[in-house]
This record gives sequence, C-alpha cells and structure tokens, in this order.
Amino acid sequence: MFRHDKRLQFEAKPEKPDPLFAKKLQELIGGAYGEMTVTMQYLFQGWNCRIEGKYKDLIMDVATEEIGHVEMLATMVARLLEGAPSDTTAEAVRDPVVAAVVGGMDVQQAIVSGGGATLADSSGTPWNGKYIVASGNLLADFYANVAAEAQGRVQTARLYAMTDDPGVKEMLKFNLARDTVHQNLWLAAIEELKEDGLEGAIAPNALFDEENQEHADTIWGLSAGSTAAQGGWMRRTAPDGQRRLRYLEDPEPLGGPASVPPPRDSLYGTFAGAPGQGSEKGAQRAPGPRQGLTDKVKDAFD
Amino acid sequence: MFRHDKRLQFEAKPEKPDPLFAKKLQELIGGAYGEMTVTMQYLFQGWNCRIEGKYKDLIMDVATEEIGHVEMLATMVARLLEGAPSDTTAEAVRDPVVAAVVGGMDVQQAIVSGGGATLADSSGTPWNGKYIVASGNLLADFYANVAAEAQGRVQTARLYAMTDDPGVKEMLKFNLARDTVHQNLWLAAIEELKEDGLEGAIAPNALFDEENQEHADTIWGLSAGSTAAQGGWMRRTAPDGQRRLRYLEDPEPLGGPASVPPPRDSLYGTFAGAPGQGSEKGAQRAPGPRQGLTDKVKDAFD
Amino acid sequence: MFRHDKRLQFEAKPEKPDPLFAKKLQELIGGAYGEMTVTMQYLFQGWNCRIEGKYKDLIMDVATEEIGHVEMLATMVARLLEGAPSDTTAEAVRDPVVAAVVGGMDVQQAIVSGGGATLADSSGTPWNGKYIVASGNLLADFYANVAAEAQGRVQTARLYAMTDDPGVKEMLKFNLARDTVHQNLWLAAIEELKEDGLEGAIAPNALFDEENQEHADTIWGLSAGSTAAQGGWMRRTAPDGQRRLRYLEDPEPLGGPASVPPPRDSLYGTFAGAPGQGSEKGAQRAPGPRQGLTDKVKDAFD
Amino acid sequence: MFRHDKRLQFEAKPEKPDPLFAKKLQELIGGAYGEMTVTMQYLFQGWNCRIEGKYKDLIMDVATEEIGHVEMLATMVARLLEGAPSDTTAEAVRDPVVAAVVGGMDVQQAIVSGGGATLADSSGTPWNGKYIVASGNLLADFYANVAAEAQGRVQTARLYAMTDDPGVKEMLKFNLARDTVHQNLWLAAIEELKEDGLEGAIAPNALFDEENQEHADTIWGLSAGSTAAQGGWMRRTAPDGQRRLRYLEDPEPLGGPASVPPPRDSLYGTFAGAPGQGSEKGAQRAPGPRQGLTDKVKDAFD
Amino acid sequence: MFRHDKRLQFEAKPEKPDPLFAKKLQELIGGAYGEMTVTMQYLFQGWNCRIEGKYKDLIMDVATEEIGHVEMLATMVARLLEGAPSDTTAEAVRDPVVAAVVGGMDVQQAIVSGGGATLADSSGTPWNGKYIVASGNLLADFYANVAAEAQGRVQTARLYAMTDDPGVKEMLKFNLARDTVHQNLWLAAIEELKEDGLEGAIAPNALFDEENQEHADTIWGLSAGSTAAQGGWMRRTAPDGQRRLRYLEDPEPLGGPASVPPPRDSLYGTFAGAPGQGSEKGAQRAPGPRQGLTDKVKDAFD
Amino acid sequence: MFRHDKRLQFEAKPEKPDPLFAKKLQELIGGAYGEMTVTMQYLFQGWNCRIEGKYKDLIMDVATEEIGHVEMLATMVARLLEGAPSDTTAEAVRDPVVAAVVGGMDVQQAIVSGGGATLADSSGTPWNGKYIVASGNLLADFYANVAAEAQGRVQTARLYAMTDDPGVKEMLKFNLARDTVHQNLWLAAIEELKEDGLEGAIAPNALFDEENQEHADTIWGLSAGSTAAQGGWMRRTAPDGQRRLRYLEDPEPLGGPASVPPPRDSLYGTFAGAPGQGSEKGAQRAPGPRQGLTDKVKDAFD
Repeated sequence: MFRHDKRLQFEAKPEKPDPLFAKKLQELIGGAYGEMTVTMQYLFQGWNCRIEGKYKDLIMDVATEEIGHVEMLATMVARLLEGAPSDTTAEAVRDPVVAAVVGGMDVQQAIVSGGGATLADSSGTPWNGKYIVASGNLLADFYANVAAEAQGRVQTARLYAMTDDPGVKEMLKFNLARDTVHQNLWLAAIEELKEDGLEGAIAPNALFDEENQEHADTIWGLSAGSTAAQGGWMRRTAPDGQRRLRYLEDPEPLGGPASVPPPRDSLYGTFAGAPGQGSEKGAQRAPGPRQGLTDKVKDAFD
Repeated sequence: MFRHDKRLQFEAKPEKPDPLFAKKLQELIGGAYGEMTVTMQYLFQGWNCRIEGKYKDLIMDVATEEIGHVEMLATMVARLLEGAPSDTTAEAVRDPVVAAVVGGMDVQQAIVSGGGATLADSSGTPWNGKYIVASGNLLADFYANVAAEAQGRVQTARLYAMTDDPGVKEMLKFNLARDTVHQNLWLAAIEELKEDGLEGAIAPNALFDEENQEHADTIWGLSAGSTAAQGGWMRRTAPDGQRRLRYLEDPEPLGGPASVPPPRDSLYGTFAGAPGQGSEKGAQRAPGPRQGLTDKVKDAFD
Repeated sequence: MFRHDKRLQFEAKPEKPDPLFAKKLQELIGGAYGEMTVTMQYLFQGWNCRIEGKYKDLIMDVATEEIGHVEMLATMVARLLEGAPSDTTAEAVRDPVVAAVVGGMDVQQAIVSGGGATLADSSGTPWNGKYIVASGNLLADFYANVAAEAQGRVQTARLYAMTDDPGVKEMLKFNLARDTVHQNLWLAAIEELKEDGLEGAIAPNALFDEENQEHADTIWGLSAGSTAAQGGWMRRTAPDGQRRLRYLEDPEPLGGPASVPPPRDSLYGTFAGAPGQGSEKGAQRAPGPRQGLTDKVKDAFD
Repeated sequence: MFRHDKRLQFEAKPEKPDPLFAKKLQELIGGAYGEMTVTMQYLFQGWNCRIEGKYKDLIMDVATEEIGHVEMLATMVARLLEGAPSDTTAEAVRDPVVAAVVGGMDVQQAIVSGGGATLADSSGTPWNGKYIVASGNLLADFYANVAAEAQGRVQTARLYAMTDDPGVKEMLKFNLARDTVHQNLWLAAIEELKEDGLEGAIAPNALFDEENQEHADTIWGLSAGSTAAQGGWMRRTAPDGQRRLRYLEDPEPLGGPASVPPPRDSLYGTFAGAPGQGSEKGAQRAPGPRQGLTDKVKDAFD
Repeated sequence: MFRHDKRLQFEAKPEKPDPLFAKKLQELIGGAYGEMTVTMQYLFQGWNCRIEGKYKDLIMDVATEEIGHVEMLATMVARLLEGAPSDTTAEAVRDPVVAAVVGGMDVQQAIVSGGGATLADSSGTPWNGKYIVASGNLLADFYANVAAEAQGRVQTARLYAMTDDPGVKEMLKFNLARDTVHQNLWLAAIEELKEDGLEGAIAPNALFDEENQEHADTIWGLSAGSTAAQGGWMRRTAPDGQRRLRYLEDPEPLGGPASVPPPRDSLYGTFAGAPGQGSEKGAQRAPGPRQGLTDKVKDAFD
Repeated sequence: MFRHDKRLQFEAKPEKPDPLFAKKLQELIGGAYGEMTVTMQYLFQGWNCRIEGKYKDLIMDVATEEIGHVEMLATMVARLLEGAPSDTTAEAVRDPVVAAVVGGMDVQQAIVSGGGATLADSSGTPWNGKYIVASGNLLADFYANVAAEAQGRVQTARLYAMTDDPGVKEMLKFNLARDTVHQNLWLAAIEELKEDGLEGAIAPNALFDEENQEHADTIWGLSAGSTAAQGGWMRRTAPDGQRRLRYLEDPEPLGGPASVPPPRDSLYGTFAGAPGQGSEKGAQRAPGPRQGLTDKVKDAFD
C-alpha cells in the first residue's frame, strides 16, 4: 500500500514559463526512458521479486521514489506552461519569439490537458506498458535498470543544455544526481548478486553446458572491412571470466536454404499444383520438411 | 549496403510440427526483447555511431548477424506450422491434444500469414520502433545492449524448457550460445570504452561537477521496514570508484507543495473565480508561480 | 512524494493456482478500464488540479489508494501462476483440464515475466497513456472518473462470476466495494461542484450564449424507423435544467457538398488539368474555396 | 445498412486557410475524445445493445450523426490547408508568420495525405480502437458517453478560443451545441434507465449484497494533510441513495506482505537455492502460498 | 451526412454459437485488412478526393457500403457468442470440446464487451488509424484499395474454410462476392484513370524526367544465387510501356562509407576528443560533412 | 544470412544541414509506407514464400536492397542534423529562420537519438509491425507491394518539392527511380503469375463458384446523387475478364434487423428481466437467435 505527502521530493520552480521546454520535458515523463518507465519497471520488478529481503526492499525503495519524480516533472510542466499562448491565432504571430513558441509547442498540453502534462513523450507518443520489463531474473532486470538510468541521464543532460532557466536547471541537477546514484546502485546490486552466488555475469546463470559450445565465443565478421578484431575485447578474458572471444573472418552459413513447406490448400497460398493454380513454371516445390503433427492430431484433421 | 545468402546461419529444422510452440516462438521474433529488436537497435546504433573504427565495425558485424536470426526464426515458425489445423471446426475438437492446439494457436499465423510468422510477439502485439534505442552515447547504448541480450537469453532459456523437439532444441542451443557471446561482447566493449578513456561507469561521463552533490550518493528509504541498508552496496565503494552510498531512513521531502498555477480563462479549467464559475468554497488559489513569458510574448498575448 | 508499506491494502490469497484466471485478471491490471488507468488518471488529475483544497486532496487520496490496487492484483496474478505448466510440451496435453490451461494461458506471463503479471490487458495489449484523461476541467474529469469506475465494476463483476476460488472471490468482493464507493464519490463530487457554483451539468460551464442555440436541443432522427422519440427524455426538462429536447424526423443536411479545394501541384494529387495529367473526363473542379493564406504568407510561397 | 448524402450536416467553410489550426483540429477528428471516438463508440454500443427499442434507436440515431461530424471536420481540414506552404525550404522562412506556420504545421497532412486530414490526433498519434467502449451495460456505457461528450466539448471550447476565423467559429458553434445536447441526452438516458427500473446509480446494478459491506462506504485518507473530509460529500447521502460516506484517517493496510511464491526452475528466476544459484545471503524464501493446481494438472506436470 | 437503416445489408445468422470462430472473425472487423480499414480508407479518400464526379462518387458509394459490413460482422459475432461459457471455472473443463472453447476464446469479448465484438483483430490488437491511406493521388490510393480487398478476400477465404456453420458460410459467401466485385472495381478504376489521361501506370505520373534514369530499370542482384533474372519480367516491356528491366549481377555500392558527423558537445555522444572523453584509441573522426546551417542560424547558435 | 558493405548503395550527402527537412525525411524511414515497411514486408514475404525459384529470389533481391535504403536515409538524417540548434533556449530565437527551425524540429532526434534518426515517422509515431503483410498468397502480396511503392513514390515526390538542397535532391532522384522500377517490377510479377497459371486477377484465385454469384458484379448506389454509374467501368468487361459490373440504384437491405441475443446473466448487460433489473418499459426482447452450443458444451455450462 502507498501513502502520499503533498510536498515534492525536490523543488520544481521555473523562473519563468517556457512552453517550448515544457514540450521537451515530456520526454522525461512519458518517454521510453522517462520517469514513468522506471517507476513502473521497478514496481513490477519489486512485486515480481521471488526472494524476500534486501533486493526486493531496495527495488521498492527506489520504485517509490520514482513515482515522486513523475510528480515533480508533471508539476514543472504545468508551471512552465503558465500563461502559454494557447489561444493565439495565426495572424498574431508576427514576432519571431512568439512564432517559435507557437510552432514548437505541444498542442495537446493545451487542448487535451488544459495547460498540464500528458502521459506521452516529447513527440506526443503515449507511454506504453511494453517500455518496462520485470522478468523475475534479477541479473537481467538489473542490467535493464542500469540501461534505463543511463539513457535517462543522457537525456537529462541534453535537456539541461537546452535551458538557461535557473529554476529548471536546479531541478535537473537533482535529477542528474539521482540518475548517477541509481546507475551506481544497480551496478552495485549486480556485484552483490555475484557475491551472494545468485547470478554470474551472463543471464540466466544456467544452461552453459547445454548451449552450443562451438558458437559461444565467436564474433561473426559479416561487415566487409570490419576492424572489430582489433578491439581489446579480443585480447582479454571475456567478462564471464571463462572464455576468450574469437573473430571469424568472412564466415559461411551453417544451415541449409531458408525454404518453407507447402501450405495447406485451405490457406490459399500461392503454390504450383494447388487447386485453382496452374503448372509449375519457374517454381519448384520446397524440399519437404518432416511429416505431420502427432498422430492423434493428424487423424483428426487429415 | 547489404547482401543476402540463401542459407540460414544455423539449421532450423523441427522434428515435427508444433503450432503451440510456433506461437511462443513469436516472442523471440517480434517481442520487446526479440531478434527484431536487437537487429534494429544495432543497425541504428551503427548508423548513428560518431567514431569510425572498431566500435562501429563491431556494432555492424553483430547487427548484420541479427538480421539472419530473424530469418532463422521465421523459417522455424513456418516449419512448425506445417499441416497445422487452421481449418478445424469446433465440432471436431474431441481430442484433448487437438483441443489444446486449437485453443493455444496463434490464429493470425493462419488467417493473416497463411502459415507463417508475423512481426508480432507471442500475444500478437506488433513489434514497434520504440523497442530500440540508439542514443549516440556508446556507454548508455552498450548497457542497453547487454540488457537486451540478457532478457533475450532468459526468454530463450524459458522456451528451451517448453519444448522437447530435438530440432528446435538444437537451434535454441545455438541461440543461447550467441546470446552468451553477445552479452560477453557488450560487457567487454564497455570495459574497452573505459580503457580508451572515452567513457566511465556512469553515462554520460559528464556534468558530475554540476549535478547536485548532496543527492548523488543517497538511497531514499521510502518503503517502510526496508532492509535495503543491509546490502553489500552500502559497504563497498560505488561502481564509479568515487562514492560510498548512504541510506536515508524515513527522509522528508525537500520541495514545497505540488501546486500548479491557475489556468488561462480560454482553457476552461475548473477554477474559483473563473468566468462562469462561482465563489470559492473549499478551494484556495495556488501560490502564484512567477509571472509570464518573455515580455515580448506577454505583449503579444495579454 | 510517496511512501510504501509492504502490506497489501487487502489480502490477495487464492486457494489454489489458476493460470486461466491469471490471464483474465490482466484486464483489471492493464486494461483500458483497469487499476493502472484509474491510478494514472487520478494522479495526473491531482497534479493538474488548479484549485487547492478538498477536490485536489480527494483526488490524491483516491489516486494513492489505486496504486495499491495494482499491487494487490499483480500479487494475486503471481500467486495464481504458482506451478503453472509453462514448460509443457504438446505431447503431454492428453488431459482436457490441462489442455484448456495450456490453450488459454497468457504465454507472456511465463516467457516474459517469469510467472508474474505484465502491464498489459487480458489479450496482451500493453497499457498506454491515452487511456487516461486529466483536462483540468473537474466536471469533465469527474464524469470520466465515474465512467472508469463503472466500467471497472462491470468487468470486476464479470470476473467474479468466472471463478469459484474463495480467496480470489474475497479480494474481488473488496474490489467491487471500492468501485461502488468510488462511483458514489465522483457522482457526489459532481454535485459538490454544482453546489460550490464551480460547474453546472454541462462541461465546460461556458459558451452557452455563443453556441448555436437552434441546434442545442435537437435529436437528429437519422436511423430509419427509430423510436427514440418515445423516450422519457423527450418529456422531461433536460438535465441542464434549461431545455426540452426536440426530435427531428428525417432531417435534411444544413451544409453544402463536401467538396475540397484542388491540391497544390507539388502534392501530386490526382486532379484534372494538373501537370502531367490529361483532360477532365467525368471530373469537375470543386467550387473554389476562398483564397489564400495571409498576404504575407501568400507572398512568400506563391 | 447506411446511406450517404453528399451535403454536410452543417457548413464547414473557413474564411481563409490556416495550416496551424488544421493541425489542432486533428484532435477533434482522431483524438481520444474526438468525433471518430464517439462515432465508433456509439456504433458498437448500438450493435451490442441487448434490448430493442428506444435505447438502441437513440444510440443509432446519434451514432449516425457522428459519422457526419467526422466528415465535416475532415472537409474543414482540407479547406484550411488550401495553398499551405508544404514545399517551403528552410531558406525561405524569413517572415515570422511563415516561420510559425512552417514550425507548427502537421507535416503528415502534406506528406501523407496530400493536403487532407489524417486519422490521427493533433500530435500525430493514430486513432485506435481502445478509445471506445461498448460493454453491453447501458448505465456504464452512458456514463462513458457523457464523459466523452464532456471532454469533447471542453476541447472544442479551447479550439474555439484559438481561432478568429468566422467560418471556423461558425462550425465550432454548431459543434458546441451538439456536444451540449448530447451531454444532456446521455444524462437524460441515465435517468430513464432508472425510471424504467433497468439500472440504478451504480453500475452494474447487482452484487451489492455480496460486495464487502465494510469497505463500501469509506474514503481512505492516504494523502497526508488531506482536507477531503471537509467536502459536502461527507454530509449528504451518497448518490446511490443508500449510504453515507466515511473518511478513514491514516488507515492501516488490511493484507499481509506482498510476497510472491518461488518460481519454477524452468523459469530461471533469481531465487536462492535454485539450480545454478548459490546459498541464500540476505534473502529469505517467501511464505509458501497454498499448493498446486488441480490434482490432475499436478500429476501431468510434476 | 449519413443515414441508417436498421436492416443488415445481408443476413448474419449463425446456425449455432461458436465462440472460437467469434474470435477469429475479429480479424475481419478490426484487423489491418478488415472491414473497418476499408470503411475508413474509403471515407477519407472520398473526403480527400480533389475531383468532383464519378471517382469521388464511386468511392463514397463503396465507403458507405463498408460501414454496413462492419455492422454485419459485429452482429454475427454477438450471435456466435450467445451462451458462450464466459463464467466457466478451471475445474469444469473436463470435456475436450469445452476445453478448446475455453482455451481459444477471446476473453475480452466477454470481460470488456459483455458478449459482443471489440474493435480489435483476432489477437486482440486494437484497430488503428495508420491502417488506412488517403493520399489524394487516386492511382496510388486505388492500388492500395486493390491490395486491401485482395488481402481481405484471402482472409475471408481462410475463415470460410474454418467453419462448417451454414449460416456463417452464407454470410461469408456474400463477403467473398463483394470482395471480388470490389477488386474488379478498383482495378477497373485504375484503367479509367489511364483512359481519362489522369494517371499512368506509375504513381505519381510525374518527375520521370528528373528521376535518375540510369537506375530506373535495374534489378539489383543482392541475394547470392538468385534466379530472378529468369523471370518473364526480363523479357517483356515493363508495365509502364516504356522500359525493359535489366538485372545487375553482384552490383557494387555507388556511395561512400556510411559515416556520420561528430555530435555537438551538448548531445553527449561518445566521440574521441569530446569534453570528458579521452584520447582516440581505435577510433577515427569521420570525414567532416559540409559546414553549418544557414549563416543566420549559425550566428545564433555557434 | 546477410552480409554488410560499409558503402552506401547511393550517395547521401546534403550540401548543408536542414533540421526541418531531417524531421520530414523520417516519413521515408519509419512511416507506414517508408523504407522500413518495404524492407520488412519483402523479407517476411520472401521467408514465407512457398515456391522456390524466381519469385522468391526476386523478393529477396529487392528486400535486401531495401535494408540499404533505410541505411541511406538514416545517414542522410544524421548529416542534415549536423550542428542543429538542439540546445537553443527560448530567449535566443529572435530570428525567424531560427524560430522556424526551433519550432519545426523533431525534438526526439536530439533528445533521444543525439542527432540521429529515430525509427518513427515524421510526426514521431513509432514504426510498427502491422504496417507489413506477408500472406503467402503472392497475388495479394504483390498488389500490396505495388501499393507500398506507389505511396512511397508519391511521398518521395512531395519531399523532393520541399527541398532545394542539391545533395538531398540527388539522393531523392535515385529513390524516385528505384520506386519507379519497383512499381514496374511488382506489376510485371503480377502478369507473370497469370502467365504461369498460378493466379488470376482476383485474389485468391479460388472459391468463385461458391461465392454468392448474384452479388459478385454489383455496385451498390448508397451515396445519394452519385454519378458512379457514368464511369467507364460500367461499359467494359471487368478486369477478371468474366463479368460486367452493374449499378444498383437505391438498393434495399437484404438482411433482417441487426438485433443481438440477450446476454447471459453473468455478463451484467442491461436487459429487461435480468436479475436486479426491473420491468421492461420501452424495451423489447430481441427475436431469439437459435439455441445453444453443442450439447456437450451446453451440459457443462447450463
């Protein structure tokens, strides 16, 4: 269960309105790597965490903080939009500053939200549930968390350079710091998983014996003239501590042709010899893949 | 520019059809962490890479391989669907095996693709371009690549346990191996970025002096009874090699109330004193944020 | 800012697993009218609320509760999936009960979430930010809130009939009750807006004098043989307390033909007389709409 | 079956083109609360209506009118775009008015539609089928209809303030009037449902005895310092005519911890003691939820 | 403006319910090539048509028919769902027929629509506005219409084979016929465009002199071992009546390397020599593309 | 399997940056009819092709070329963005040219991609997998390919008119030529399918005897005053070579009323006589559709 405090985690006071920046800030609210994404990613990871204790608790601590980040940003957007010229007519835009504002505003912040934030990104694409992942495998999920915080901090840094409003910059400095600490945190939690013997460097920490050993250490050189073999990754032990990567120059495919079986008649695919279709000019029947479903299924349908 | 070889990178021959598994395999084709995602993520990262040489070449080598993985999986799906009972009527499903197949098939593989793969995931959601990221910051992007390969290998491992078809398992063993080597590779490339002095542990490698120092090392304890302070992450230097994380027990918010300014009349927001609205019972005007747009904009609109 | 309590708002303990129901419950998590929708709708309405005090506080009280509902449901889903046959092969499904389970499971709950909830609905469509609205007009938004709670309670009632697990039913009884109280609440808040003189029955409470009076009270009879004129709505004063609805039998259109102007040459639309296009057989130039942009724009482009 | 009349329901003639406004008008065509939404919502409600007669007929009357509203708006957009500077080069935009137009146009109206409307909203997000609801429960659906008309009229009012073109304003005055009459209508139809004894105030009109009575009248005070208890909703009988709402100050959760069961091995979740995973430091097994599937399913999988 | 007739264009009476087929029929309602798509595609093409007369009138005739097809299908779905076991519990599914039904139903038809159709496809993906096109170029649009009707008829044929209900088959025979006539119609309308001298075989009928002549007749042989040069397309005049296609064996790229310029510092891309980044090991600056924006823009930002 | 060459298929060098055009070019990358669509449409058609030989080889030749087109466009976008004013503040936009640029830029190209292309269209909507079709019926698919190339060439022609940069125009001339040759190619391949006796003019080439003959040649005149009967399509044999189209003036519906059956009680639809619902005023029970499911299903649920 959750509780709310009316105060913001950190102050979100622009010195003056800036509708252009209010549009750009939407990326940090509803973008694929915005605060909504980390909020929901962490909440679902916490709820889906299979071991009680420090990992789950850490996830829920951070998740709960992130809801408050969405709150800060939504508040900042509404304040940046104060007095924004939503009702401007084309006739009126004779000043370049106004023209830029009119041209570059997020019109849905006015028409739909009445001067507030939307749950969308900086180009108006709505946030969606596929932006998050909560696999139950903590190593894979913590890697995803590092990635989300890293992309989020890169975007925050870019936005920081796009404004000179002291109030906005103050809030973004806080956001930058939180993104730094969270990147550190998830990286540290990955180390902890290894320390605790729960996971290794590769997710999941299983099936290494079953996987195809011959193909578990090769870089396929498929871009002509590639210099990838010159990277230090070739000279050092791989991060899993067990292998050395090898570079395959101009490798040949290992499989046969990518042919597929003829379709059932009732699917009306184009195929020589099918009902309603003529002789087979320039076409050849694919080498037949092995037969049928289980016998029981076959009996029912054939 | 690209070239195609008709042979598959690795063989994709099921021993017998299995329409239920053909549906599940869609996750590795068009899921958020499927092969389409890594294909497009790497292609756009390669095209967006700002330094010529080993990094860009490596990205393009792997990207080109991944297109071939989509090809392997699409071929496997079509073969798994051979003879699938797309034209079964409700009357016919008197056998439990058939019933399960009829119930659990991906009907669009029949109706839309005529017995082939779709560009969607295992629940039919179409793949979309927001699944990928190519920020131009290689550290942030390589973290995203590790995350994608890790989630992909977790899903492949799960699918590996859901089949006992030797041909399918053979292909998945290859996929598991490739996911292992690619995780190793992106982790190694992150080390290489550090070695080359291009990036550190935190993305982007900048603005550390400007970010809010006071809040760059704290875990906010916001989940009551959390034991997150007991993690090893509190006892070791943070992964950036510079800080020690601190845990804030029951911290207070730093900002003021999350109030927002009154709306312009033309937005028809509910506000006491607005035109057509009455006296202000139980409502109170928000503390006014600072005034206006730039003067020029103000003049034009007020 | 938000805080978390590890305990659930209400108990979520199924008596036994039921993977089929775990799929159906997704509708209440990530459906268009699920708990995620009301959570985010109320949070954004609260953050976008322009009058401090009771309305905003009420919205935030309820919004905060709803986050906890998502938590209850996500927990319930993971418990319903305990031991679910994710790794079943087609061969094994010889029992009808198993067959139904295998056929009707949400495969992404296994492949993607490892036995947990996803942020999607019961057919796997991801939740998205367009499901919510926070217009800043409290009357319009409270109507939307009543609608969301009503649809949510209808769906909960249907799900209640689809299970006989006492633990699941117990939780759904709580959900039904909360949906009842929230419907009552938003309906009561609408009355309060009227009492406070802030809004009337029609949103927004403005422009009534400017709107086209002649067309503000008519039902257009456009479905042949309609008996809509027999409804009580014709005999009573309209809900705004001011009008009486009128029924127009077989009304004629008021506008001219739906023609559109010829395209600019550079748009390569099909138009008789355009460059590269021939004489005008069977086609006729649309009656010209009035000319041009503002003169300044015209000068720049023509 | 439907029939078409070439004339528009109401005239849609702008005095002069205005590409900026043509972009904004897209919200009323393809936005979540635009005319496409009400068209499809009413059509599906009509087709899904289970009682013949006045309700169904009314829905179909209004649904049929709404198709004509999309037609009016699409025509208006094409006329507003007449002569719009789609082929302007960056060099040419030396005039602020032109600059604003170039900056603020919907580029897809030119590139994709050749100077016409798209089926998307004002930020280019395509309309989608999840915007509509047709539950078969008329009370829940009529609430949704009131909500849609209310949001639609709020947006129309905002757009009305964003233009000073007399022709556009004339059409919007008609739209405002239709939105007024439709709000009145659906509110009146809700009263009629009650009069006819078909529904009450709460949807669905059922399960009140089964729902958890103890929790059917409480507002949970979860936002610290909330003044929600001061609202008139506490002093009056609830809209269902049966209860009085109660306010719970600082309530405690009623459920246990939000723990979830250990994952099956084949899901490769992180869990202490799982294969390939080490001893259990800092982690504790969740209290076991009750066992298994039905026995038959158990036998098949364990 | 539109009018409605309560009767269906053609009868839609199943002999008995079939919930499995009700799910599959959704593809013809809300699929990418379903009736909703052709309805909206034709409506927007008609509204966007720039020449009055026979073309526009034909489009509107067919568009209006298609709305009625959605109506037929939605009605059929509701009838196929009569008495469907939405409230079945897992315990009850001991019969294979029931198991298949339970496994293969569209659960949202029950939970969301209460036994009716949704505006989604057969895997539950909502219909969206990007499925349609109305470019204003009638040749391009009629090609799109032929394609839509062809895919629609293929899907209808597949569904026809999936049922043996005489009532359903009767309706699908009507649909097959309408898809035949509409394919004929759009193909005939393409011929008419040529007859009228409005368009040729290639859309748009313009810029042929400006396009790169050297590359307007070549097939690039990029798939090793391709036999595409053996097709009759090499021996006959091309459909535009002007060219003969040529096949390029193993062609070389014509452009330079796909390098991109260094990023601005404020974008925090990884680049050797950028602030906070080290010396350039293994990386090389891309050959600089030509300089700057227009001078005016340069002055403002550099 | 695929291989990559670092050189672009054709040069992509703008003379100078143009951020406005970089936004517009996104339509050709990630739009519904952009290069990503044809790439994936052809790849999946090739992988899904059921006859080996010239058709499949042709599809793979062209598919492989198209990947290189996405590469050209992504490179062009990054070059057009060189030095773009992503870090401009509102204060700085005092020059109209700059204002237009600031207003009309794709902000995600800066914030998300760091000065590179995104996988989205010109209004920021992400590309998605439903844009492609690969039905296995080559006639239907080749029609879709003609349509895609035609829309693509129309859009390219429009973009060609929107720039005067010689380098950009040079690349677009190549694209126009390729779109011409590909339209010719797919039209020629359709002829080849007929020559080979594999398909006719109507897809699929089957079920003509079963389809409803009476309705396979009629245009329903449903738009009042339509002149569609004046088209040449009425005077010539239909493209299938077998029929002559007929025009039905003001036709009557052939089906009965669009009524649907009463809902099961557990769906809580509004219906007179249902539990919790009153007497039936103004409502009438729909004429009962035929009874039940198969008997076995009936027994299980009734």
